[in-house]
Amino acid sequence: MQPLNPAFADEVRSSFSAQSVMTLLGARLSKVQPAQIVIELPYRPELTQQHGYLHAGIVTTIADSACGYAAYTLMPPNSQVLSVEFKVNLLRPAKGDLFRAQADVIKAGKTLTVVRADVTATTGLNGNAILVATMLATIICIRS
Amino acid sequence: MQPLNPAFADEVRSSFSAQSVMTLLGARLSKVQPAQIVIELPYRPELTQQHGYLHAGIVTTIADSACGYAAYTLMPPNSQVLSVEFKVNLLRPAKGDLFRAQADVIKAGKTLTVVRADVTATTGLNGNAILVATMLATIICIRS
Amino acid sequence: MQPLNPAFADEVRSSFSAQSVMTLLGARLSKVQPAQIVIELPYRPELTQQHGYLHAGIVTTIADSACGYAAYTLMPPNSQVLSVEFKVNLLRPAKGDLFRAQADVIKAGKTLTVVRADVTATTGLNGNAILVATMLATIICIRS
Amino acid sequence: MQPLNPAFADEVRSSFSAQSVMTLLGARLSKVQPAQIVIELPYRPELTQQHGYLHAGIVTTIADSACGYAAYTLMPPNSQVLSVEFKVNLLRPAKGDLFRAQADVIKAGKTLTVVRADVTATTGLNGNAILVATMLATIICIRS
Repeated sequence: MQPLNPAFADEVRSSFSAQSVMTLLGARLSKVQPAQIVIELPYRPELTQQHGYLHAGIVTTIADSACGYAAYTLMPPNSQVLSVEFKVNLLRPAKGDLFRAQADVIKAGKTLTVVRADVTATTGLNGNAILVATMLATIICIRS
Repeated sequence: MQPLNPAFADEVRSSFSAQSVMTLLGARLSKVQPAQIVIELPYRPELTQQHGYLHAGIVTTIADSACGYAAYTLMPPNSQVLSVEFKVNLLRPAKGDLFRAQADVIKAGKTLTVVRADVTATTGLNGNAILVATMLATIICIRS
Repeated sequence: MQPLNPAFADEVRSSFSAQSVMTLLGARLSKVQPAQIVIELPYRPELTQQHGYLHAGIVTTIADSACGYAAYTLMPPNSQVLSVEFKVNLLRPAKGDLFRAQADVIKAGKTLTVVRADVTATTGLNGNAILVATMLATIICIRS
Repeated sequence: MQPLNPAFADEVRSSFSAQSVMTLLGARLSKVQPAQIVIELPYRPELTQQHGYLHAGIVTTIADSACGYAAYTLMPPNSQVLSVEFKVNLLRPAKGDLFRAQADVIKAGKTLTVVRADVTATTGLNGNAILVATMLATIICIRS
């Protein structure tokens, strides 16, 4: 899985910066590699559901952006990336201080790319990363 | 599909109020009926992805809460509601002034309930509601 | 949702006949309309799982073919149809004498089409159709 | 992930033998370990779709049984196993001489277990295993 766009990392960073919702949530792009993206999100009480855990939709938001950008790293120049669909299994309550969505491309295609993302939660500075959700997503490349 | 909890509407409203993320997004609960919930979210530029449309994760956030609470309307007193998993198809760009997630229970069970949600976007005061996403979700009832 | 191929019904029937697995299972195409397909499958003990019900994979097989052909009814001449992905919720045990998968297109696109299928089971000649499964599928059009 | 039922392997084999559809398809159980199951299926022209490849529903049938039994290896005695739902991405045409569905438990719970399965195709005796599909499934344990 080789990048077709030598500027892929810059384009991912620039597109991520243009996602206003990432700023609202406080998410940051922490790894950009061919076929792999990591997005991190520190816990904030404003992001929670009724039990004080991170809302499943917010878990999904960082996983979806990670999947889209992991696919984007392999797309040719002048492509646009869009999510077609995804499925998420919520495995454990999303509680912790730091959430980390790592997306890896499973199958890259000219039009469609399939990506998996795992979201972990870590409590404290030395806590173990606990798997809280997993996503399986289909991403489309739109050539302009 | 009859409610087992006469106070279901109050409990849904009270739980929704406890979801801090709904306040952050600006979402409101606009309909609470047995087996059906509607959540509305006005467009805000802070909620967008790189093309200025509502981020798929935010579309998912209101759809997921709508599905969970639609299931919750049918649960017995002293239940807790959790999302097990969901799949979302993003059908069209989520652009518009007002987004509306309507969730309807397809099959209610003692432990698991399956719910479908459609998310529409409307532009202007008299615009048509355009279907932008559909969710199929599995929700679990935890008895305490 | 208007057919682009005046011969759509013939092409669906001819492609269905070429699916050897439909003959092995004993499935038949019972309705072919623009954006809608119905496939029927009578119960046979050879198709069951360990409790004597229709295996979830066989439920899926008729639902998937129904979804693919529902999308195919709307594709231009000289297209090929392939399933990209699907999600199935198994709602009740698949027991009965006759199973019926009805697929309806939700959103038709040039490249991708999203289709929903419901599978019902009927017992006896006058039994009610019970919903046993629902599928949400993404289908791709390959132009040759 | 430790087995709670010392007879888990015998119970999986016995339940698999009771799935008549596995005999119809010609599938065999080739690995039974705690949290992991492999099912193999040799190619047969009776199992194909219109292009001569294995039908996506048949790919799903072996993946679903593999997921269910992988979850079953970790369930206590006197449990019944049922699929709640699954999502499958069809990654490449299912062509080859031998198909192999390997399921691994991601998260085992008292009620629900989440399992992933990969299905590969191999051509010839020394061919590489090509990933043709991936499933993410939710399985329920019914205690009797």
